[in-house]
Amino acid sequence: MRTNESARGSAQAEVHAPWGWTDAHRAQHVSVIGATGAVGRELCTLLVQAKHPLERIHALARAECAIEAAGARLSVRALPQTRDGLHAARTQLAFLCTPSEISLELAPALCELGTRVIDLSSAFRMRADVPLVVPEINPQALAGGARLIANPNCTTVMAAMPLAVIERICGLEEVVVVSFQAASGAGVPGLETLQAEAREASGLPVGQRRASPFPAQLALNVIPGVAAVDELGISGEEHKVIAEMRKILGRPGLVVEATTTRVPVERCHSVAVHVKTARDYSLPELIAALRAAPGVEVTDDPHGPRPRECAGLDPVFVGRIRAGTRGARSLCFFAVGDQIRKGAALNALQIAAALTPES
Amino acid sequence: MRTNESARGSAQAEVHAPWGWTDAHRAQHVSVIGATGAVGRELCTLLVQAKHPLERIHALARAECAIEAAGARLSVRALPQTRDGLHAARTQLAFLCTPSEISLELAPALCELGTRVIDLSSAFRMRADVPLVVPEINPQALAGGARLIANPNCTTVMAAMPLAVIERICGLEEVVVVSFQAASGAGVPGLETLQAEAREASGLPVGQRRASPFPAQLALNVIPGVAAVDELGISGEEHKVIAEMRKILGRPGLVVEATTTRVPVERCHSVAVHVKTARDYSLPELIAALRAAPGVEVTDDPHGPRPRECAGLDPVFVGRIRAGTRGARSLCFFAVGDQIRKGAALNALQIAAALTPES
Repeated sequence: MRTNESARGSAQAEVHAPWGWTDAHRAQHVSVIGATGAVGRELCTLLVQAKHPLERIHALARAECAIEAAGARLSVRALPQTRDGLHAARTQLAFLCTPSEISLELAPALCELGTRVIDLSSAFRMRADVPLVVPEINPQALAGGARLIANPNCTTVMAAMPLAVIERICGLEEVVVVSFQAASGAGVPGLETLQAEAREASGLPVGQRRASPFPAQLALNVIPGVAAVDELGISGEEHKVIAEMRKILGRPGLVVEATTTRVPVERCHSVAVHVKTARDYSLPELIAALRAAPGVEVTDDPHGPRPRECAGLDPVFVGRIRAGTRGARSLCFFAVGDQIRKGAALNALQIAAALTPES
Repeated sequence: MRTNESARGSAQAEVHAPWGWTDAHRAQHVSVIGATGAVGRELCTLLVQAKHPLERIHALARAECAIEAAGARLSVRALPQTRDGLHAARTQLAFLCTPSEISLELAPALCELGTRVIDLSSAFRMRADVPLVVPEINPQALAGGARLIANPNCTTVMAAMPLAVIERICGLEEVVVVSFQAASGAGVPGLETLQAEAREASGLPVGQRRASPFPAQLALNVIPGVAAVDELGISGEEHKVIAEMRKILGRPGLVVEATTTRVPVERCHSVAVHVKTARDYSLPELIAALRAAPGVEVTDDPHGPRPRECAGLDPVFVGRIRAGTRGARSLCFFAVGDQIRKGAALNALQIAAALTPES
C-alpha cells in the first residue's frame, strides 16, 4: 500500500522527486494530449513543478496555441490527424486528457506506436485488461506491465481513498456515497458558467456567455444527478462510482449506492459516505489508520473538510469520522479533494511515477 | 392522512380557505411572537394571504417596529416583559417563532393564560406530552387536545413527507438522510451573510457586515455538520433529524442515520435519501402513492427537484425516485422544500388550521 511518493526517504529527496518523479522519469518525452482543458493544464503544471524538462513536455490540443504552466510558457501543437503524423510525434508516455470518444481512437493507435498511455477518460476504465489505478490503493494492478492504464473518475477517487483504508482494517459490507461536485468537474466551461451566473446573481453585467454544460442554473442551486440519467433513474456518474469503486477496491460484489449532485463550488468534490463494515471496528484505531495512510489527511475541524479550503491541495481530506447510528458496524465520514489534482492530473502523474521509466 | 387543505372542495372554497384557514379560524386573535425573523415574517405573510383580519394579527418582537406582509403593513409591538403585560396581550392562539430559550419561558406562561401555543423552536419537540405534528403525516397527534404543539425541524419535514408515504406502502427498515441546507435556515443573518460573501466573491464592495452565523465562508463552499457537533461527532441538526423523524412517523425504533451540510443556496433545503424498506415494493405503485399524497409533488425532471426553483412554493418536491443498488428493498430519492414555508411557517399554519378554533 506504499507508493513511490510515500516511500521517499528525505525532505532533500522530496525537492528533487515530488510525487515520486525522478530523473529517470524526466528523461522520458511525455505528451499531454488535450493540454488546454482544465485537467490537461493541471498536468502540464504538475510536470513543470516536478522539474520535467520543458523540451520533453509535448502539449497537444485541437489547435495550436500557448499555455502558461507554473510560470513556464508551453507551446501547444495541433494534434496530428494522420497515423504518420502521430508516428512522428510519438513519445515514451502520453497522458490523454481527452473526451472518451477521442481516447477510444487515440489510445490504441498510440499503444501500437509503442507509447505507454495513461487515459483520463472513462473509455477504458471498465475493460478487464486495463488497470484502473489509484497508486495508494492498488499499485499491484500495474505489475502486469499494461501499456494502457486508466485513471478513475474523480468522485470515485475521493470516496475510495478513505474507503480503501477502512476495507483493510475492518472490511466493507455496504457503502452509500452522496456527492457534492464542483463546477469545474465540467471543465473550464463549467467553472466559467458558475462564475458568470454568480456575477449575474450579484447584479453585475455579464457579456457574451458560452452555453452552460449544466441542465439548470448552478449558482445558488443544487442540481441532483451528475451526467445523463438512464431509464433506471441512475445517472452516468452514479454508475461510474459504483462500478469503478468495485474495481479499484478489488471487490466485484461490493454493495455500493450513490446519489451525485452538482453544487455551486468552483473546485473540489465532496462526498458524504455512510458505511457498514464487515467486522466490528475500533474508531480510534480506524482514525489512526486514516491518519497514517499516504495521500489521506484527517481533519479535526468539526465542520470540515470544506471544498473551498482544499482547492489546489494534494491530499484527500477526511473529517467528521464517526460511529453511525445504524448499528455497531455503521460508520460515517465526509471527504473532500481537489478533483482536478487527486481526482485527475495528480493521480495520473502518480501512476506514471509508479511505472518504471522507459527509454 | 388527508388534511383540511387537501379536503378542500373547490377552487371557490380554496380562495376563501387557503391552507384550510376558514372564517372560524379568522375569528380568533392570533399572536406571532418573533415576527421580525425570517419565519415570523413568513407567518404574518401567510396569515395576510389567508385573509386573516389585520386587527386580529398581533405581531410581537423584541422591539417596536413595522413589517410588510403580503402588501399589508403590520405594526410590531414589543413583547410584554411581565406576566400582567402578557395577560393583557393574550390571544386565543400564539405562534412562537422564537429561539428555544425564549420559547421555554413563554410557552408555559402563555398556556397558563389560556392561549393555545404552536412553538416553532426545538424546545418542546421531544417532550412526550407535546405533539410534534406534520398535518399530512400525523394529524391524529392533535386529537388529545394538547394546548402546546411543536412544529418540527425543517430538514426533518422535507424527508418525512415522502418517507411517511413509503412507510405506509411498504414500511421503512432503515433511512439514511444527507441534507443540503440553505443559508436562510440560519435566518436573515444567514441569508445576508451568503449574499454579502457572494458579492465579495464577485469583486463587489461589501460595506459593514454583520457576524456570520456559519463557521466558515459559505459562498462557493459546502460546510458539513449543521449546528454544533457533539463528542460523538454528531451535529445538533443530525440528532434532530433522527429523533424527530422517529416521533413524527410513530416509529420510536426506526433506524435513521444523517449527515447534514450547509450549501450556498438562499432558500430551500434539499435531502438525498437512501432507504431500505421493510417489505418488497413496486416502484410504479410507490410513485403513484407519492403523486397522490397531499403536500407532495413528484417531479419527472431527471435533474430535479432543485432548491432555487422551489423557493416560495408550498409542496415538498420529490424526484429521482429509483430502485437502489443495495438489494430489492433499497430505494433512493431526492426531496426539496422551502424550509421557511413547509419547514416552518406554513406547517405551523396548517397545524393551527387542523385545530378547532376557539372563541
